[in-house]
Amino acid sequence: MDVLGVLNLGDIAQTFSKMGMFPVFDLAYYIVSILYLKYEPGSVEVSRRSPVASWLSAMLYCFGSYILADVLLGGSPVDYFQYNSHILLASAVWYLLFYCPLNLFYKCVAFLPVKLVLVALKEVVRTRKIAAGVHHAFHAYHHGFFIMIIVGYVKGSGVALISNFEQLLRGVWRPETNEIMNMSFPTKASLYGAILFTLQETHWIPVAKSTLILLFTLFMITCKVVMTARHSHGSPFSLVESWVCHLLFGSPLGGAADDHHGGAVAPAAPSSPAKSKEELSEGTRKRKVKKAE
Amino acid sequence: MDVLGVLNLGDIAQTFSKMGMFPVFDLAYYIVSILYLKYEPGSVEVSRRSPVASWLSAMLYCFGSYILADVLLGGSPVDYFQYNSHILLASAVWYLLFYCPLNLFYKCVAFLPVKLVLVALKEVVRTRKIAAGVHHAFHAYHHGFFIMIIVGYVKGSGVALISNFEQLLRGVWRPETNEIMNMSFPTKASLYGAILFTLQETHWIPVAKSTLILLFTLFMITCKVVMTARHSHGSPFSLVESWVCHLLFGSPLGGAADDHHGGAVAPAAPSSPAKSKEELSEGTRKRKVKKAE
Amino acid sequence: MDVLGVLNLGDIAQTFSKMGMFPVFDLAYYIVSILYLKYEPGSVEVSRRSPVASWLSAMLYCFGSYILADVLLGGSPVDYFQYNSHILLASAVWYLLFYCPLNLFYKCVAFLPVKLVLVALKEVVRTRKIAAGVHHAFHAYHHGFFIMIIVGYVKGSGVALISNFEQLLRGVWRPETNEIMNMSFPTKASLYGAILFTLQETHWIPVAKSTLILLFTLFMITCKVVMTARHSHGSPFSLVESWVCHLLFGSPLGGAADDHHGGAVAPAAPSSPAKSKEELSEGTRKRKVKKAE
Repeated sequence: MDVLGVLNLGDIAQTFSKMGMFPVFDLAYYIVSILYLKYEPGSVEVSRRSPVASWLSAMLYCFGSYILADVLLGGSPVDYFQYNSHILLASAVWYLLFYCPLNLFYKCVAFLPVKLVLVALKEVVRTRKIAAGVHHAFHAYHHGFFIMIIVGYVKGSGVALISNFEQLLRGVWRPETNEIMNMSFPTKASLYGAILFTLQETHWIPVAKSTLILLFTLFMITCKVVMTARHSHGSPFSLVESWVCHLLFGSPLGGAADDHHGGAVAPAAPSSPAKSKEELSEGTRKRKVKKAE
Repeated sequence: MDVLGVLNLGDIAQTFSKMGMFPVFDLAYYIVSILYLKYEPGSVEVSRRSPVASWLSAMLYCFGSYILADVLLGGSPVDYFQYNSHILLASAVWYLLFYCPLNLFYKCVAFLPVKLVLVALKEVVRTRKIAAGVHHAFHAYHHGFFIMIIVGYVKGSGVALISNFEQLLRGVWRPETNEIMNMSFPTKASLYGAILFTLQETHWIPVAKSTLILLFTLFMITCKVVMTARHSHGSPFSLVESWVCHLLFGSPLGGAADDHHGGAVAPAAPSSPAKSKEELSEGTRKRKVKKAE
Repeated sequence: MDVLGVLNLGDIAQTFSKMGMFPVFDLAYYIVSILYLKYEPGSVEVSRRSPVASWLSAMLYCFGSYILADVLLGGSPVDYFQYNSHILLASAVWYLLFYCPLNLFYKCVAFLPVKLVLVALKEVVRTRKIAAGVHHAFHAYHHGFFIMIIVGYVKGSGVALISNFEQLLRGVWRPETNEIMNMSFPTKASLYGAILFTLQETHWIPVAKSTLILLFTLFMITCKVVMTARHSHGSPFSLVESWVCHLLFGSPLGGAADDHHGGAVAPAAPSSPAKSKEELSEGTRKRKVKKAE
């Protein structure tokens, strides 16, 4: 029975890891990404004043991870722009989200049940990207463990890591913070995921890659869907992180190293001063967007 | 007769498109570019305090388009610096413009009739660069329409697109605006030119490249010379843009999308709050430079 | 006798230029570099709040020159991260300097006699890097004199040239100044060194490379050790520079072009308003670090 169970899981994982991402999953990725761009204060005004800047921002939100990974591996930053169908799909999403009459498209995709499905689909793409990034780096540098982790990390985090410069494109400049100093849950999970996939790629973890992809995807979907549904911006890692950082880096206990929560394990605490972009409570966001319209 | 006329235009275009740019046209390009650098507030002080920073700025003004295009296509940013004669010529222009006794060289080239000729020559180089950029990108990505447009665009716009970082080199930081949010006429024309040349390169426009180069050059020369002579910073595109942006992006009519003029078709309106670098009225500029000396 | 002397110098230079840098010299380089990071105001707080940002800063301090040179020559910015042993050694130094109990490691290496030795060893590595950078660029561009100088320069200066962006990683933003506008002694010496090594590489200076490496290393060690011991931030070039800049660039005499000293030849003047990072007097630094602990 146990053997069969393992076989089945392996089969499911195999099938899952061979599933194509384009167009359904990619579409969900683009929608959720550009939705987060629309939540950014000022982005609606920019879309009215300068469509070119708004379009470029949207492209960075959708393809920032490819651009960054290509740059890190010495390639051309615009390499991914050769896939015209992806660019056109993302551009269509951008147009519908920002300029659709009556804001209809936005209202549909921001409707919580729809959004939860899209968020779940987005995490499928994110996990795949991390695995692909690690694999790509492994081919370029067989023993470059650090390079594998870095490339997997940027493939998972995408635009968040260059958010300072993406904001600059829209005339916003907040030098006092950045995504590395205040990592949001997806960025942190990408880092841990990149480490896991690197260990798998170099055979330190005795598990098939397809299985790891399946398990990590399930973990990411669960976390993000629960967090989105509960309008929470906590992190499931904060308790462990708090202790590890205390032991290794002497960070004060009771406040997680990168979180600044009053109480380390209060994932929904609304008083956090360092809310990250992807973690703003839905209510605030919607109000902001409505005000901007 | 008509056939002959076409033949003649084709011949002229052929001859024109084969004309070498070095050294006459390139010299004009360097002079006008570094002249615009000298118009920038604070650049004269920087040239006194730190010649290295001033020289680097001048090089960015002259070769920014090559640097950006090389970076975008995955090459070395300093690749163009292998052409020692170009660098030496541009350095000589920089030295004469900033350090010539009695400011003699500056006074000569800033004299309006001379300047109009130089501006006209500069536009010849700009058009060539756009065409070369699109062609270069076409060779790297045969179906990468977006890449061709982007590379042609940066080849035409040059330093303007990285002006935030060029200013940073001189200790100036203006995050609230950038060239993509407030496109000046040359930047906008480069974008439209890049689209035209991409359509030509992919055979969507049934016209010879040499003819397109000739026509686009004539258009650019006419516009820039008239604008420089009238000290204007309007754009011949503003009326069309205003309507297109209103239809497509819901921008308020009567103010062009990226212009912020009170009246959309008031090209010489001196009250524009978002004057771009290349569009500052000559009077203001000269006063500023004189003050700085 | 004279011939023998020359032979001996040549032999010593040969032996010296073949000496391996890893691990002793590189270790000293990492220690001194990360020590300077710890002197930066706010870096200790960042190490408590976000170890990832602190680690990245430390890596930029140690490997910034490789990253920059790789980028300039069109390679991958993370290329050097394939040398796991170097990264691990630098990471160990970072950990010990920032998180060692009782701050023991910091106290050892910041103890002046120890520090003087480490600073001397660091300059050995710097000179080697400049020579290697020029040689690397020479292989890529045989006649690219400017490229050789630029690559040698960034190999010698390292993180200083991107200090604005390194600071941004730690949430600090000082756009009003940068290393090119206010060059510190090591940056300036790297520029002059790069010019010297370029002249040697292209056979304009009739001297063996190993001899030039030996002589330049001795010069750098002498200057830096004296400056560190005397807590000075002057520059041995200031008198010559002051005159050259006055003649060539019309800079006011009596204040060196990039120094802003009241008196040009007062190398230990404590009133300089533009103290560079590497030149802050030891006393101030130590007080700052102690305060931050």
